[in-house]
Amino acid sequence: MQNKYTTYILNEQKLDNYNLLLNETLFHNANGYIGVRSVFEEGYPDGFESIRGQYINGFYDFSQMKQAENLYGLTQEKQTMLNIADTQSIILHLEDEKFSMFEGKVLDSIRWVDMEKGVTGRYVQWRSPKGKEIELTIIRMTSFHQLTLFTTSYEVKPLNFSGEITIESSHDGNVLNYTDCNDPRVADDGIRYLTPISCEIKKGASYITSKTTKSNCTITSCVKNILLQDHERQFTIDNNNAICQMTTEANLGGTIKLIKYAVFCDSIRYEDCREQAGVELEKALSTSLESLYKKQEDYLSVYWNNCDVKIEGDDELSRAMHYNLYQLIQSVGKDEHSNIAPKGLSGEGYEGHYFWDTEMYIEPFFTVTNPSITKNLINYRFSILEMAKENARILGHSKGALYPWRTIMGKECSGYFPAGSAQYHINGDIAYSIIAYYLATKDLSLLKEKGGEIIFETARLWMDTGNFHNDIFYINDITGPDEYTCIVNNNYYTNVIAQYHLNWAVKVYDLLKNTEIFDELVNKIDLKFEEIEDFHAAADAMYLAYDSKLKINPQDDSFLQKRRLDLQKIPKDKFPLLLYYHPLHLYRHQVCKQPDTIMAHFIIEDVQSLETMRNSYDYYEEITTHDSSLSDCIFGIMAAKLGMEEKSFDYFCHSAKLDLKDKHKNTKHGIHTANMGGNYMAIVYGFGGFRLKEEGIFFAPILPVKWVSYQFKISYEDSRIIIIVKEDICCFRLEHGSAKTIHVYDKIYHLKDMLIINRRYNKEERS
Amino acid sequence: MQNKYTTYILNEQKLDNYNLLLNETLFHNANGYIGVRSVFEEGYPDGFESIRGQYINGFYDFSQMKQAENLYGLTQEKQTMLNIADTQSIILHLEDEKFSMFEGKVLDSIRWVDMEKGVTGRYVQWRSPKGKEIELTIIRMTSFHQLTLFTTSYEVKPLNFSGEITIESSHDGNVLNYTDCNDPRVADDGIRYLTPISCEIKKGASYITSKTTKSNCTITSCVKNILLQDHERQFTIDNNNAICQMTTEANLGGTIKLIKYAVFCDSIRYEDCREQAGVELEKALSTSLESLYKKQEDYLSVYWNNCDVKIEGDDELSRAMHYNLYQLIQSVGKDEHSNIAPKGLSGEGYEGHYFWDTEMYIEPFFTVTNPSITKNLINYRFSILEMAKENARILGHSKGALYPWRTIMGKECSGYFPAGSAQYHINGDIAYSIIAYYLATKDLSLLKEKGGEIIFETARLWMDTGNFHNDIFYINDITGPDEYTCIVNNNYYTNVIAQYHLNWAVKVYDLLKNTEIFDELVNKIDLKFEEIEDFHAAADAMYLAYDSKLKINPQDDSFLQKRRLDLQKIPKDKFPLLLYYHPLHLYRHQVCKQPDTIMAHFIIEDVQSLETMRNSYDYYEEITTHDSSLSDCIFGIMAAKLGMEEKSFDYFCHSAKLDLKDKHKNTKHGIHTANMGGNYMAIVYGFGGFRLKEEGIFFAPILPVKWVSYQFKISYEDSRIIIIVKEDICCFRLEHGSAKTIHVYDKIYHLKDMLIINRRYNKEERS
Repeated sequence: MQNKYTTYILNEQKLDNYNLLLNETLFHNANGYIGVRSVFEEGYPDGFESIRGQYINGFYDFSQMKQAENLYGLTQEKQTMLNIADTQSIILHLEDEKFSMFEGKVLDSIRWVDMEKGVTGRYVQWRSPKGKEIELTIIRMTSFHQLTLFTTSYEVKPLNFSGEITIESSHDGNVLNYTDCNDPRVADDGIRYLTPISCEIKKGASYITSKTTKSNCTITSCVKNILLQDHERQFTIDNNNAICQMTTEANLGGTIKLIKYAVFCDSIRYEDCREQAGVELEKALSTSLESLYKKQEDYLSVYWNNCDVKIEGDDELSRAMHYNLYQLIQSVGKDEHSNIAPKGLSGEGYEGHYFWDTEMYIEPFFTVTNPSITKNLINYRFSILEMAKENARILGHSKGALYPWRTIMGKECSGYFPAGSAQYHINGDIAYSIIAYYLATKDLSLLKEKGGEIIFETARLWMDTGNFHNDIFYINDITGPDEYTCIVNNNYYTNVIAQYHLNWAVKVYDLLKNTEIFDELVNKIDLKFEEIEDFHAAADAMYLAYDSKLKINPQDDSFLQKRRLDLQKIPKDKFPLLLYYHPLHLYRHQVCKQPDTIMAHFIIEDVQSLETMRNSYDYYEEITTHDSSLSDCIFGIMAAKLGMEEKSFDYFCHSAKLDLKDKHKNTKHGIHTANMGGNYMAIVYGFGGFRLKEEGIFFAPILPVKWVSYQFKISYEDSRIIIIVKEDICCFRLEHGSAKTIHVYDKIYHLKDMLIINRRYNKEERS
Repeated sequence: MQNKYTTYILNEQKLDNYNLLLNETLFHNANGYIGVRSVFEEGYPDGFESIRGQYINGFYDFSQMKQAENLYGLTQEKQTMLNIADTQSIILHLEDEKFSMFEGKVLDSIRWVDMEKGVTGRYVQWRSPKGKEIELTIIRMTSFHQLTLFTTSYEVKPLNFSGEITIESSHDGNVLNYTDCNDPRVADDGIRYLTPISCEIKKGASYITSKTTKSNCTITSCVKNILLQDHERQFTIDNNNAICQMTTEANLGGTIKLIKYAVFCDSIRYEDCREQAGVELEKALSTSLESLYKKQEDYLSVYWNNCDVKIEGDDELSRAMHYNLYQLIQSVGKDEHSNIAPKGLSGEGYEGHYFWDTEMYIEPFFTVTNPSITKNLINYRFSILEMAKENARILGHSKGALYPWRTIMGKECSGYFPAGSAQYHINGDIAYSIIAYYLATKDLSLLKEKGGEIIFETARLWMDTGNFHNDIFYINDITGPDEYTCIVNNNYYTNVIAQYHLNWAVKVYDLLKNTEIFDELVNKIDLKFEEIEDFHAAADAMYLAYDSKLKINPQDDSFLQKRRLDLQKIPKDKFPLLLYYHPLHLYRHQVCKQPDTIMAHFIIEDVQSLETMRNSYDYYEEITTHDSSLSDCIFGIMAAKLGMEEKSFDYFCHSAKLDLKDKHKNTKHGIHTANMGGNYMAIVYGFGGFRLKEEGIFFAPILPVKWVSYQFKISYEDSRIIIIVKEDICCFRLEHGSAKTIHVYDKIYHLKDMLIINRRYNKEERS
């Protein structure tokens, strides 16, 4: 019996283009290294569209990005995550008939994602045009235990016949990235990035090694088909493609089982990827599939134990939350060569680039549930620090590092710098996330080895970007998170995170001063004490604009003097606005794609009064379109913070099933990982009122009225705390680790084993 | 004897790439319709670069302009002025030897531009490797009398031999635009825009008709070679190319003369351009070449009489000024299908697009010397008004027109909108120039027929771009003239010209109110009286920023709080900055490419005190790089205005020979027409202190100390005034027309015949 919360099941499948593409995304398999879109093994008939992709996180080629008008320093070349050799294809022949969902009759059909077992499943009962009935059960897994491995278990059970069946399992190196000439956002001109350089059969396995055109990367995929009964086998092979054809006898009532092992090794991680592919295949074959399944389940068991969020009172939402968190562990890179893309490994939207989504939407989840993953993500940032320095030089800064707005291997991939490279806040975001990791773990080693260096190099950039004028520190000509307003002065979000960043650069300097690595570090990056003094002075003098009439923080210097865009008057089919309005039109109006000042109030809440935050909330909410999937969750969190519980819940409900309900109508291009992290935050930081600060951890739980209870866990320093919120009480239980001081509803408590707080009493007291 | 002021002579020719390309520009022929770069008729040897171009003003094809990141409304297609069929080639064979400047020995070589006769000349005395000596005299003319006509007179005189000579004269339709793969600014991917569709010989003339790839334009070129002595003639013809080979006997002491007629007709101007080419050829042949030369000289005689500027005391400067004014009449379009490009018709820089240069740098010359040319230029703007409305819609404005920043046929060609389409001031510039035309001529017909409509439609855009906020009218998110700062709020130049524009829209409304066209016009554009009231209110409430500490007008809202760029510290080889610094770096600093606020102070001087203008001048001069060729002249003019006579003269000297001395190192791509207009302004508006205002015309002459005297003419209403400035006096003489009131040194005089004003006395009085 499948767990209703941890299995997402689709019973009725519509075989139209829209649903096929959507389900390719929703049922994809990934483990942070490999991602496989869930195309039917046997494919679709001609005329159906498919984004038939398999991807390796961080495996890319360079692609020319011609600028319409070339200015100095503009990005001329981007990176693209590549669609790699296709190992999905399995075609089933029942004598002269070929299995297809689009012919004969589908008697039953189910697909599922089992989030405890870590597999996707497909069950089909089918009658062929000539009347043969079969049952097909297909289980796919991208292994968390062995990241290079993707398995497909393919079971055929004849229901009303015995006879010969043939299974054709392909391994195809002839692949292109997805293009859509009607949609310029994915129009890629059908460039051949990856060219097979060898295709061979060795010990019954096919190996295809392919090379990228420009980035000089290589990848080997290896496929081995194991059919668990007597059969005849024949290979057809050319330069690009290896097909293994297996013919066997099917007996009524019996089951034929094929296990298809596919392993992938790339030259970014492995010196000799062809050789390593052999090693990886051996490794996979050295243990039984059942044992691999067991390891998958074990891995996830630990994962869920670390992070699970339980909601009592809304099964569907509860399952949606599981789905969100499951996709995060599927998507996140597990080594320093990769990170987590906005679409994870589920599609080609945003070309597999990494953005600030990582630090501001996804790490807040991992940092307090699986901090080692955050550490990994920070390691990735460290691995591209040198390129971030080069990027800063391109932008005219003689010192410091500026992280690229979007990248795979470290070079900027943004083609339109006003909404890309100009988003300097990414430096602050990265610093913020390193500080959060430190605050959650008190693990100084990361700061010593990598984090400190990142924080100092990125802090330097504020000093060269901003400047003192009449004793105030201004930051001009940058772009904040809201891309409907570009290249502005004193964007509140940017200034407030820069202030936090600079203040923490000083603190980190003090933290590291007496450690053994200090001298080496300051020598390495030539850090002068005067710089630290300057950081301090700039943070102190940082300009944080406040409008005394409206009693809000203006998004930037000129935002409030612009005309407000009346969103009510804009037809519904003109959203998202960026697809229907010229950027200058948007820039000229008070309109926000997503939270900007509101985001700043969320992440750094102690520099403004509740009243200012409430006024800002009311003000900006009216002019925010939520055209970005990064929007609802933050508005939900801040609604909770500001006492608008119902509104908070509404935002959450809209956001929680964004992909499952395809609310942005683009899930076919991939899931929205930042939104998924945001949904976690909506519960924990929103309803739970959780905050991680220098002063400790804070909670202020509320309970959505429709829920009976909910619970989540927070890893903090050496401890883990389970938080259960019910109508009357909230309960804090120390699952393991030492006793902690915690702040609940602004009071300080000592948590030793268990702490129960009367919510009613507190609520009354607060109101 | 050639006039030393009106003939530019080059005696010594360096046959290197740099000089060949530069001279192709400097000695080009043009008449506002055709432009022919001055390539050697016989070409250069392999390995030499040549921009072997012939152009038709306003004849274009569309070319894809792919955006690196495509946003709504970004320009995806630009127009490119095309290199048309090559009619320059004439190859001379002396039996088995071919004339070449790069072989044998050049005994003498001179090139010249005769600005009274309107021709360029080339004289060569040459000894062949085998010892044959010849004298070559080549005269080229693009006819002002017959715009479609380009003639080459080619004379060969054998100096030490008699014998057979063969002249090969080609007409080649196989042409591409110039590309330089090392320079992205002219890297055009070698696209074939123009394809010959027919190539034929008829009545001894070759006709090549070519069609553009995308714009559906056609052009016919027709060439007829007339050799004025007995000869044998043979045509070689293929699909693209017609070669006329003429063999004759040369006699020692005699002269062989070939006249090559080339005519060009395009489908933008002519319904049947093939047929029209025949008509035009007949027309050219119906009169003698001498008579065509005479008409050319007559045309220029009138031109010079209208506009000549004479400088006594510096022959070289005087000649340079003639060169500037000559290039303006060569470059300016003579019909509503064309305008004047930054490079005129002398090269492919800026792709033959038209910019604000027309209105703000070139019309100020024509308006007071040849106002009918200004009228023509305004007619061109009217012809693209509908497209300017469409452009406004693309940018999100539901009403009004926004002229494209750069265009040929009316659609925006700017690939980078922050420094392109965002320069909304072009609307104000066009209105300003129409008003100036009206002020200079009091010709109401233009306002009635076209000018009023333009002024109203463009004024509407300010209302939708700017907005009231606390009773002040702000204009946000536009770009001013200075492209080192983009997308700013309340750019002083923009706000001040918008105010002027709006005020004049009200005045024009009043001027037209009682005319016969009024009802039709307001109906046509649905102009409401309330709009006029709004124009008035916005002009009244226009925000013109003033910094009370520095006592200057800030360039925009945030300019002064940015860090100043210390230009002294930047190495000389890093200029122009735009080629060496990322735009964001420039945007973030106080640095100007060219006058912005200073330009505003020049064109609308009465809204600020002299003190504010002087302070602004000092402030901005220090941070202006003059990387634009539009800079020096304005700084020179304002220096004169503010009493810095020496500085004014220095700016003028630097600017006057910009092309002749190739000071910007890019004259090979074409002359700088705006600078040429600016040089006129530097004398007349600068030294002469001339201003054209609603209140009348104003003068405040100064005399550069190195000069003995200078003089210029101003056409004003029905009159023309000659102004002569000497050390002691300035003299105003009414050349024709009715008596006028003029303002000299801020005093009012009545000019009937002649007025002589003591400069000394006035100077003392003023100081």
